[in-house]
Amino acid sequence: MPRFAFRIEYNGAPFCGWQRQSGQPSVQAALEAALARLDPAHPPVAAAGRTDTGVHATGQVAHADLTRDWDPSRLSEALNHHLRPQPVAVTACARVEADFHARFSAIERRYRFRLVSRRAPMVLETGLIWQVRHPLVLEPMQKAAHALIGRHDFTTFRASLCQAPSPVKTLDALEISARDHAGGTEFQFDLRARSFLHNQVRSIVGTVERVGAGAWPPERVAQALAARDRAACGPVSPPQGLYLTGVGYPVDPFET
Amino acid sequence: MPRFAFRIEYNGAPFCGWQRQSGQPSVQAALEAALARLDPAHPPVAAAGRTDTGVHATGQVAHADLTRDWDPSRLSEALNHHLRPQPVAVTACARVEADFHARFSAIERRYRFRLVSRRAPMVLETGLIWQVRHPLVLEPMQKAAHALIGRHDFTTFRASLCQAPSPVKTLDALEISARDHAGGTEFQFDLRARSFLHNQVRSIVGTVERVGAGAWPPERVAQALAARDRAACGPVSPPQGLYLTGVGYPVDPFET
Repeated sequence: MPRFAFRIEYNGAPFCGWQRQSGQPSVQAALEAALARLDPAHPPVAAAGRTDTGVHATGQVAHADLTRDWDPSRLSEALNHHLRPQPVAVTACARVEADFHARFSAIERRYRFRLVSRRAPMVLETGLIWQVRHPLVLEPMQKAAHALIGRHDFTTFRASLCQAPSPVKTLDALEISARDHAGGTEFQFDLRARSFLHNQVRSIVGTVERVGAGAWPPERVAQALAARDRAACGPVSPPQGLYLTGVGYPVDPFET
Repeated sequence: MPRFAFRIEYNGAPFCGWQRQSGQPSVQAALEAALARLDPAHPPVAAAGRTDTGVHATGQVAHADLTRDWDPSRLSEALNHHLRPQPVAVTACARVEADFHARFSAIERRYRFRLVSRRAPMVLETGLIWQVRHPLVLEPMQKAAHALIGRHDFTTFRASLCQAPSPVKTLDALEISARDHAGGTEFQFDLRARSFLHNQVRSIVGTVERVGAGAWPPERVAQALAARDRAACGPVSPPQGLYLTGVGYPVDPFET
């Protein structure tokens, strides 16, 4: 059974998330239905990140074992054909070794969160960004974010339903940048870690946003982290600003 | 009658363009209907650029004379309220002198065209970019574009229906840049001129794209310009990649 890796882009809005759930549309079910049109064995798919309801991806990675061998570019064309009109696209495809596992071989996940502060409603990127209507200040958010980088117990910043065996994770990067956005400012949060806890990115962004708004002093974020208490977390941000932008492996499966 | 200037963002997809046309939805009609909710005189609106069907704007500028004075930020809030759920937003508003005219005072128009080359369908920015599925090469496009900069007779690059009194225009800038776009490359064309002919940007982009695809040698664009013949133009690009990004005035009405 030849194994293939896929890089996948999707708009999370119409889906209950990556993972298949009975009776609800999921990205996994969409991809598996497309694969089933090509392979009578109905191959299951495993992904690097199980994104939540409404979360987007530009660089999700998944793998599947197919019955016969395929030219990778023909396979991605065929999958994209069968995925239409759903907002899911295979942007890269490669034949990989049998020991490659999209989830267990991954050594890094990268997320971006897009947050815009402006009064006027969004009319071009509706559903692709989290909008707040109050001003946000960059420097206090950067200061607060700095306290979260490194190896910590992130109990404060994980969903109560999170099933990870340990709340200790190493956040390798959390960079916040700002740019003009017609009548407002867009803030991009770029996060990088070997793995993330459930709701960790949205918990961090929602909390740091409170600092940018002036509602929290920057130090309160470090205190919330130290409290190791979910109740110390700020509000969890909505999903539509979040993108799984990439997954790192010891050897990039899509490098030719 | 106090005069107000508006900076306007819109998604052009559902509109027949900026200009009011009987029986069709236009951006101008949407804005005038919102103004009519606030002012019994039903003030008409004049804009700097009469964008075509399907063309977007992030920095359109328009003005109107209102019966009573308004606080500019309250006026834009009220207009945005009445514009919903249409994809039109007022992103800036200012009280201006009676001799300010959105169209006739303008000394510069800026347009951006977004073109992406990749095999997989677009699922996140559907309708916001022109996609081609073949590869494009940047340098020949830049070389071809260079021949168009400056003062020229642009007869080749204007719609046969164009009503401008003269085909001679000065193109002050035409820059093409490239960036990665998940599994492909996005090319941004940034154009700047005092004014443009009807369909000029889309005629230029569609023609230069032929060079990027290798179908035209770069020199053919200079030859097409010199021909001063609409028949020498390449295909006109579709509208969904085009944005009116800004309008320049001797004094920026939105600078406080």
